[in-house]
Amino acid sequence: MTDYRRLRVALLGAGAVGSQVASLLRQHADELADRAGARLELVGIAVRDVDAPREVDLPRELLTTDAESLIVGADIVIELMGGIEPARTYLLQAINSGADVVTANKALLATHGPEIFDAADQVGAEVYYEAAAAGAIPIIRPLRDSLAGDRVQRIMGIVNGTTNYILDRMDTEGAEFADVLADAQRLGYAEADPTADVEGYDAAQKAAILASLAFHTTVPLDAVHREGITSIDKQMMDAARHAGYVIKLLAVCERLNAPRPSRSGEAAYRDEISVRVYPALVDRAHPLASVHGANNAVFVQAEAAGNLMFYGAGAGGVQTASAVLGDVVSAARRHIAGGVGVGESTLANLPIVPIGRVTTRYQITLEVDDQPGVLATVAGTLSDGRVSIANVEQTVAGEDARTARLVIGTHKALEQDLSETVDRLAASGVVERVVSVLRVEGD
Amino acid sequence: MTDYRRLRVALLGAGAVGSQVASLLRQHADELADRAGARLELVGIAVRDVDAPREVDLPRELLTTDAESLIVGADIVIELMGGIEPARTYLLQAINSGADVVTANKALLATHGPEIFDAADQVGAEVYYEAAAAGAIPIIRPLRDSLAGDRVQRIMGIVNGTTNYILDRMDTEGAEFADVLADAQRLGYAEADPTADVEGYDAAQKAAILASLAFHTTVPLDAVHREGITSIDKQMMDAARHAGYVIKLLAVCERLNAPRPSRSGEAAYRDEISVRVYPALVDRAHPLASVHGANNAVFVQAEAAGNLMFYGAGAGGVQTASAVLGDVVSAARRHIAGGVGVGESTLANLPIVPIGRVTTRYQITLEVDDQPGVLATVAGTLSDGRVSIANVEQTVAGEDARTARLVIGTHKALEQDLSETVDRLAASGVVERVVSVLRVEGD
Ligand SMILES: NC(=O)c1ccc[n+]([C@@H]2O[C@H](COP(=O)([O-])OP(=O)(O)OC[C@H]3O[C@@H](n4cnc5c(N)ncnc54)[C@H](OP(=O)(O)O)[C@@H]3O)[C@@H](O)[C@H]2O)c1
Ligand SMILES: NC(=O)c1ccc[n+]([C@@H]2O[C@H](COP(=O)([O-])OP(=O)(O)OC[C@H]3O[C@@H](n4cnc5c(N)ncnc54)[C@H](OP(=O)(O)O)[C@@H]3O)[C@@H](O)[C@H]2O)c1
Repeated sequence: MTDYRRLRVALLGAGAVGSQVASLLRQHADELADRAGARLELVGIAVRDVDAPREVDLPRELLTTDAESLIVGADIVIELMGGIEPARTYLLQAINSGADVVTANKALLATHGPEIFDAADQVGAEVYYEAAAAGAIPIIRPLRDSLAGDRVQRIMGIVNGTTNYILDRMDTEGAEFADVLADAQRLGYAEADPTADVEGYDAAQKAAILASLAFHTTVPLDAVHREGITSIDKQMMDAARHAGYVIKLLAVCERLNAPRPSRSGEAAYRDEISVRVYPALVDRAHPLASVHGANNAVFVQAEAAGNLMFYGAGAGGVQTASAVLGDVVSAARRHIAGGVGVGESTLANLPIVPIGRVTTRYQITLEVDDQPGVLATVAGTLSDGRVSIANVEQTVAGEDARTARLVIGTHKALEQDLSETVDRLAASGVVERVVSVLRVEGD
Repeated sequence: MTDYRRLRVALLGAGAVGSQVASLLRQHADELADRAGARLELVGIAVRDVDAPREVDLPRELLTTDAESLIVGADIVIELMGGIEPARTYLLQAINSGADVVTANKALLATHGPEIFDAADQVGAEVYYEAAAAGAIPIIRPLRDSLAGDRVQRIMGIVNGTTNYILDRMDTEGAEFADVLADAQRLGYAEADPTADVEGYDAAQKAAILASLAFHTTVPLDAVHREGITSIDKQMMDAARHAGYVIKLLAVCERLNAPRPSRSGEAAYRDEISVRVYPALVDRAHPLASVHGANNAVFVQAEAAGNLMFYGAGAGGVQTASAVLGDVVSAARRHIAGGVGVGESTLANLPIVPIGRVTTRYQITLEVDDQPGVLATVAGTLSDGRVSIANVEQTVAGEDARTARLVIGTHKALEQDLSETVDRLAASGVVERVVSVLRVEGD
């Protein structure tokens, strides 16, 4: 066996992910040494309660509640505690004491990313976070390195397993949101408090991380437009299926302007971007439509590379541990090589436009009076609002023959125009109710 | 604009890929400088004929037939000539003169990879080859870095666009191989001499590269079992569809042994591997089944990460150029950082087993005499040969009522057992003809 140099690895957290990381670090020690060119010596594991029952067997003597002492003298610190504090303080402490750090903490990176990356830059440390963007799916290196010579135009990601599981079951079983959610909670696919998932907060954090990588710019979390899936009901699902769509919660990161000619002087490529999370209609023929269950996928459109998709498990303790360990090996290689490391390249400060300036197609479902002239009134209002109709379907609504249902597919329209127009329709005499307005993504 | 250090980039080849690389290097110069932390100065482009017409406008003064002079003093050399010689000599010259090298040359890497990587190791240079494994699909970094802490169990790749295009059209249009091939040649999806694609040579080169990355071992090209798609006909396609399968040309890289306990001493994880390329039946519900047209996809099963899939364009000049430029940016970052670089980790020399030792499921189609007792004879022969039957379907063959057709699905069986058993069936009195034997992959 090769006689490798030893690197001291400190682990903060031994929960769903951390316990698996600890277990794999010990189980695959020889292979990891060959991969990293160094022996990864787990010097300790910080937890809140050393006596708490653990999913996996961890040597009692490695556990400690004293994270700060563990960090001192570590070459690599792995943060898997979650939350903002004390995770933030520990990460900064690790960086300032000369360690490279690995984290899966999307909440922390989406809110304090610049502070942490700046601190690392100052001392020449590196921050690895493959597991923070899409769990086990390798997406950081492809975006940061493989596509570094290309221009990403758009990312559409299914980045939250819980909501994809719920929407997929609603779609395939024709079930209602509340029923599937309850079942998902029972089966462990959704948390007791499902807010972070079903309201899109988790997806918004990942969208901020993905957009900052794809467009090499800073993306504050509060610039991400966010809508959850709690308003999606069986009727909307059925209508979507009928029209050849499926409803997915998408994280969309988009470059808005066509590239300007590059010789026109400084910063010719400082386009604008949009980052948004919402349930959207996706054509059933689109590769994202066949992402089932709790799986995740990130669809990337790049100028030269064309369409790429990355698919896999977006969460799960052992799956996420795989991504964390890949980062640990990279950190170790860098430590051995002694270089300045891959670094993030120069960051721009691209303007992030509000949702009103986004352009997509829409599907509008209205309940209208079933009378002659109604369609003409609706069509007129849309056209006055600069929303152009691609197709209309009219069905008579169930028992109540007095009203009919109009499903209107639009061409691309500005969100601002669309929403003002829908308000005007709602206020008009002929529309009884705006049943739903959904964006169509994927073209 | 930041005042970046300049790096001298030499380009060898200005064909389908090279001309796009040259064009993007100039068009995106400012962005590339921001990404790389250095200005990438294209100092020259080596071609065979400086007066040949080119797809893109290249400054005449950059073109030269003198590749050797171009290499001298270059910081980064991009090899996009293709073929073994003089590409090999030039790459070695570049490495020995201190340059980092980027290549898309799968033929060269699959045959002379170890020589080139060794030469680079000797001088501390780096070889980048993202475009050599699956065109524009980022697969090298995920396998080498993101999954470095995990254990890849199996890769199934659709890595040749031409054959996927042909098989997809045969499947969707019910057309014959020869007709689709002729059409593909007319449309530019297949070369005038399609041998490298349809006989699986191109896929075998990529399989060797993927397997060596995934299993961190040396894989000689002649250890890759290879079968092409020329024997696939309409009837086999129809039968596959009928049984819920689609036929794909797969590159399969598989770890054969279950991991042995790791504390048993040296090299406890030196498993055996199998690397093979052949047309196989893939369940229509499998993500690989929905890879259409000339697209490529690499499906990866890893111990911790679970199932991952990487999808995109496997070829095309501009798509491939994206992968090449990503490598150029990585090479430039490394040059600036001055570290020893990512390196390939320690390589093992895992035994590569012959095809006879591979285990898969099979679908065997036989033309048999339509007489009582035939099924019992066939079943007996299979069972004697250690091939266990999962399901059988019998249909009477078209006009000739004298014979019937048996489609037999097997459980997992050893290829050696299977092929001896099929020989025995063919020689038996009751089997008129072995119509086809196809392997089933994906479970
Ligand atoms: N779970 C996933 O599938 C997944 C996927 C992608 C990313 N992530 C991210 O990975 C991180 C960890 O997630 P998880 O699911 O493993 O969390 P978890 O199961 O809640 O585990 C958290 C661990 O951190 C420890 N801890 C918490 N606060 C601490 C403190 N103040 N001092 C010392 N130890 C402390 C806990 O100790 P005790 O055990 O003593 O309570 C526990 O071991 C999070 O940032 C999460 O967003 C998770
Ligand atoms: N095309 C794809 O989609 C694709 C995808 C993945 C990987 N690749 C790989 O990328 C590499 C390049 O492919 P390609 O399609 O761009 O090839 P190509 O179109 O045939 O271009 C080859 C170029 O190399 C030049 N060249 C050939 N031999 C030379 C020599 N002895 N000295 C100087 N220049 C020489 C040629 O010069 P002239 O122009 O003067 O003839 C031409 O410009 C190959 O290794 C290929 O396997 C290609």
